Amino acid sequence: MISFESDYIAGAHPEVLKRLIETNLESLPGYGSDPYCESAKRKIRETIGMPEAEVYFLTGGTQTNAVVISTLLADYEGVIAAKTGHVSVHEAGAIEYTGHEVLEVPQKDGKIAAETLKEYLTVYYGDESHEHMTFPGMVYLSHPTEYGTLYTKAELESIAAVCREYKMSLYLDGARLAYGLMSHDTDLTLSDIARLCDVFYIGGTKVGALCGEAVVFTKGNMPKHFLTSVKKRGALMAKGRLLGVQFDALFTDDLYFRIGRHAIEMAEKMKEIFRKHDIPFFIQSPTNQQFVILENKWMEEIGQKVAYSFWEKLDEEHTVVRFATGWSTTDEDLKALEEAMETMNN
Amino acid sequence: MISFESDYIAGAHPEVLKRLIETNLESLPGYGSDPYCESAKRKIRETIGMPEAEVYFLTGGTQTNAVVISTLLADYEGVIAAKTGHVSVHEAGAIEYTGHEVLEVPQKDGKIAAETLKEYLTVYYGDESHEHMTFPGMVYLSHPTEYGTLYTKAELESIAAVCREYKMSLYLDGARLAYGLMSHDTDLTLSDIARLCDVFYIGGTKVGALCGEAVVFTKGNMPKHFLTSVKKRGALMAKGRLLGVQFDALFTDDLYFRIGRHAIEMAEKMKEIFRKHDIPFFIQSPTNQQFVILENKWMEEIGQKVAYSFWEKLDEEHTVVRFATGWSTTDEDLKALEEAMETMNN
Amino acid sequence: MISFESDYIAGAHPEVLKRLIETNLESLPGYGSDPYCESAKRKIRETIGMPEAEVYFLTGGTQTNAVVISTLLADYEGVIAAKTGHVSVHEAGAIEYTGHEVLEVPQKDGKIAAETLKEYLTVYYGDESHEHMTFPGMVYLSHPTEYGTLYTKAELESIAAVCREYKMSLYLDGARLAYGLMSHDTDLTLSDIARLCDVFYIGGTKVGALCGEAVVFTKGNMPKHFLTSVKKRGALMAKGRLLGVQFDALFTDDLYFRIGRHAIEMAEKMKEIFRKHDIPFFIQSPTNQQFVILENKWMEEIGQKVAYSFWEKLDEEHTVVRFATGWSTTDEDLKALEEAMETMNN
Amino acid sequence: MISFESDYIAGAHPEVLKRLIETNLESLPGYGSDPYCESAKRKIRETIGMPEAEVYFLTGGTQTNAVVISTLLADYEGVIAAKTGHVSVHEAGAIEYTGHEVLEVPQKDGKIAAETLKEYLTVYYGDESHEHMTFPGMVYLSHPTEYGTLYTKAELESIAAVCREYKMSLYLDGARLAYGLMSHDTDLTLSDIARLCDVFYIGGTKVGALCGEAVVFTKGNMPKHFLTSVKKRGALMAKGRLLGVQFDALFTDDLYFRIGRHAIEMAEKMKEIFRKHDIPFFIQSPTNQQFVILENKWMEEIGQKVAYSFWEKLDEEHTVVRFATGWSTTDEDLKALEEAMETMNN
Repeated sequence: MISFESDYIAGAHPEVLKRLIETNLESLPGYGSDPYCESAKRKIRETIGMPEAEVYFLTGGTQTNAVVISTLLADYEGVIAAKTGHVSVHEAGAIEYTGHEVLEVPQKDGKIAAETLKEYLTVYYGDESHEHMTFPGMVYLSHPTEYGTLYTKAELESIAAVCREYKMSLYLDGARLAYGLMSHDTDLTLSDIARLCDVFYIGGTKVGALCGEAVVFTKGNMPKHFLTSVKKRGALMAKGRLLGVQFDALFTDDLYFRIGRHAIEMAEKMKEIFRKHDIPFFIQSPTNQQFVILENKWMEEIGQKVAYSFWEKLDEEHTVVRFATGWSTTDEDLKALEEAMETMNN
Repeated sequence: MISFESDYIAGAHPEVLKRLIETNLESLPGYGSDPYCESAKRKIRETIGMPEAEVYFLTGGTQTNAVVISTLLADYEGVIAAKTGHVSVHEAGAIEYTGHEVLEVPQKDGKIAAETLKEYLTVYYGDESHEHMTFPGMVYLSHPTEYGTLYTKAELESIAAVCREYKMSLYLDGARLAYGLMSHDTDLTLSDIARLCDVFYIGGTKVGALCGEAVVFTKGNMPKHFLTSVKKRGALMAKGRLLGVQFDALFTDDLYFRIGRHAIEMAEKMKEIFRKHDIPFFIQSPTNQQFVILENKWMEEIGQKVAYSFWEKLDEEHTVVRFATGWSTTDEDLKALEEAMETMNN
Repeated sequence: MISFESDYIAGAHPEVLKRLIETNLESLPGYGSDPYCESAKRKIRETIGMPEAEVYFLTGGTQTNAVVISTLLADYEGVIAAKTGHVSVHEAGAIEYTGHEVLEVPQKDGKIAAETLKEYLTVYYGDESHEHMTFPGMVYLSHPTEYGTLYTKAELESIAAVCREYKMSLYLDGARLAYGLMSHDTDLTLSDIARLCDVFYIGGTKVGALCGEAVVFTKGNMPKHFLTSVKKRGALMAKGRLLGVQFDALFTDDLYFRIGRHAIEMAEKMKEIFRKHDIPFFIQSPTNQQFVILENKWMEEIGQKVAYSFWEKLDEEHTVVRFATGWSTTDEDLKALEEAMETMNN
Repeated sequence: MISFESDYIAGAHPEVLKRLIETNLESLPGYGSDPYCESAKRKIRETIGMPEAEVYFLTGGTQTNAVVISTLLADYEGVIAAKTGHVSVHEAGAIEYTGHEVLEVPQKDGKIAAETLKEYLTVYYGDESHEHMTFPGMVYLSHPTEYGTLYTKAELESIAAVCREYKMSLYLDGARLAYGLMSHDTDLTLSDIARLCDVFYIGGTKVGALCGEAVVFTKGNMPKHFLTSVKKRGALMAKGRLLGVQFDALFTDDLYFRIGRHAIEMAEKMKEIFRKHDIPFFIQSPTNQQFVILENKWMEEIGQKVAYSFWEKLDEEHTVVRFATGWSTTDEDLKALEEAMETMNN
């Protein structure tokens, strides 16, 4: 069936797969010490214009969040995140499993405001007994957020300023970074992110790789003996080449950005289809995930023609569902969506 | 200085101290296997009218919460608690340190409503991808709450019913249980608590002991080899007698309840003093902790005469402070408070 | 360079890669719920002749050990392993990271004897204060071991009997299982392993997959809500298909066993080469890893022609090195090894 | 019954108890911020002649080990300990519970030799893949050891030199420190220990306190926000005075050393009794714990007259048992022991 269920429904982007095939028979050392990992790291450093940045490849998003957060936080620290943040809700307690608290703060459309942070910190440090509470040691943002929304450059700068003032790391979860960077509605570049964040990751799994996320430490702050800490968390891949080759391909000929651009174009066309059929948007998303409100009776019928994701119940008669585009989304897919919509209107 | 800073400002209640002195020279086995631990457990079981209950002594409140919650939860479960719950805020991440998430829910006056729980669970289990989220495996209540408020019998029954429906344990943090039980404004008895909760603890540290909390498992649900799990968490006391002798004293001649009653009487008199001097209450508390709103200019002046605890800033000119009574609070203390108040009014 | 460095130097076996290519464009659900995972599980169940077995795919060996051990052990339990076991030495403390102790016992050639186990348990349970010590809750074996050696059927049966007597799980790490099963010197079949162990894993990473291990729970003992526990440990792959497709290929047309057989044949030829050149074996290994003793002066020279792994220093003048075969080892590779050896003898 | 079961069979030393009684009614701030904690810390600093040392009070030995080790180690590090060390065997996995590995090394009479350490480190760092193994970050010694034996000054200096060379912390578990310092057979002073170790603790529980251990950080190395980390581990006592007052008493008028001296005198007399009755010593212990070998038939009979601890089975007919002295051991107790021995000989 035509599927908009997620941006990880298909395998690898053909250019990624091609490189895996081409390099398959080479004898390479393990654990990330192969030349493809090196090459991919170099290309990423060049792309973000930061020759000194440290890059490390991990397998998936939850793993990356747990590894990065738990190795950068001090023992007495926790990580501030939006109440809707992936680390707060959808990781089955993976951060807590590392012994660290997620300090939830209010959000709007999936985003944290610098003012919210400031207020949290003022109350925290204003409390005479705050040593009995978890110290806020890091701010976690996702960009795009879990609702497909984006931080503006000004917003990220304000947040980064608060982080610097309170000596907290700023960490950006870029599971879908390509779709944020290529959005028609953003003024935030990859270089901005690299400059403002202490650490962020460039998501591969949701942008054309079979698996893999590239963590970038921008301030000489990669934890010492990071490989050992990664191994200790069961996150060190023996055939590290699998990650290296894929990211090498993603950062060759701008593939990462081309994938992002394609998915955004598909999403914009998709939005047109929804608008044309008067499907209300649950949230205004400028990225590849679109959240729309469907009447329950239509929801099921449409679901027999195209696949989407359940998001949440809105009320007794309406449900929020998510349609996502990705590298494999085609105009034919959109046509099928349009046809499904038309059935509904008849 | 006269102090209302907390209910743990003084040492042991004289009757507790007396027993420590009397038994000091006896040669006793360690780790809780002495006859005083046995006797104290028997007396607690008799007091709650539950001969089969299992009782275990630990040293402090945060430790008790961490040990109980982490040994009763399954790997994939977290504990639901009020956003203001002690485990949510004031334990420096002790629950997360055990690898479990605290699932915060909204509260009113420090209390969770059964409806709030129900709604949380409906949303959780209604989410098709809830297996990617921490399962709610236990409900944590404090009674009295962190704001000195109390659950009614009907409220606790409703919460217990939700817990049974969703197969979650109900755990009650009774750090200040005596003050809840002896409040003039409660219909909830110790037997009710034992009947409705799966596990609760009878706080000693804040009710006349030097240290010590008595955990009560009411449903044959004490975790297997609990001593080993306690030891593993660094919570097994070599001279377990220190806890046994103290609880044996607290449950002899109703001392635990007499301490509670005394502190409540002192608190009621204290409330009169506040009312007489038009000091507004931040919250209506029927227990030994009173939260009042002081103008900042008076706050400091009063603080030079009697000690209290900072609670939180209310606005630019007012602060919420806490005055607590305990076994050692005397009429002379209250007189000193009254005098401090009078100065203020002049 | 020709490499015998490990059995994970190359990418995927061509038949595995072919299936990844063929299925690449299919839209599939995530997290292991795709039909290839289902098919692979079914084929594994059929192969071991255990239709009720539960199968779960994880990414790598250390991860698998940590996930399996930490979800099967009770809070108060640890896992018994050989002092040379992978979990004891080469996982950077991954088991301890989950809060569980590895209880090391003496070994011979990488193997634990049933008598050793028995003695450990007799001393443990004979100690009156054993509740202050970690309970032994599981036995971890690797087969082949880290030294390439194998348990006989009788040995595994004896160990399994001890496990049953003491109510411990028996867990077999089969990172290189294919090479054990296809060894010329074994009487232990996959069915025997499935029958005798409570849980084991069929290694993919070292047997032709890019990544992936198949955990098999044989006694209806897969931990409840295992997916959630896996997610909590950062080990849930979004594109679970990557694991499913590969294992589906590995268990089609006996590929898993053909890979094993090929590597064993290559290893046997390799042993001939060593014997012919009077290279002493450090240990008698009937599997794909061969440990030989090289004079230091030759070690370096040979290393310029073929790659191997450093294992350990034997004395000032000799070093133990490992040569491994795998699916990609060819007769040409062996010829190169032979030539390197001949240079040495001249 | 007369008991030599352990050095924690009795309550508090009378001088300690007296101070608890005298200060009982004082209103004091909580969590270790009271003047008795301050005074005790000052006295300890003076006693060790190190005005800059940082002192922190915790409740028990296992707790202290877990808190100190887990806050001083880096994420990728473990602690080296003797195979017989308390942290290796008798703490139910408390160190592993904090996520850190105990790296066991061979011992003799409970002691680690500097050469053993050196060899361990040479092998570790000589292994090319040591980044896949836990880094040794600390050495744990107990003094007296679990067998009552003592390090000499030269031995501790050698070990400290190895620690400095390999940038590891040196941590000394002084649960029974007084008995080591007052032994007739030691040249190691408290000042030596403070100078050579990075951190050590002065045991209170086994030396006259109801509970309590004083951790001393000697190199400005107390972990930042230690109180928060202590709280996070459930180890922060609300009535910190209980620890402060006791240690203040123990370090007033040399009480700590007087207790040590008394127990050593009693132990020396006890040794005479054993020698006189030809009871063989399992180990030569110059401290308050004596390990002797009893024939099983006598063991039980003696056990009806005086209490001791089972240690381990020696062979079918003999058992090793421990007799310990402490502050409460009297000449009458020894007389009872002698009488029990005499019965045996008849």
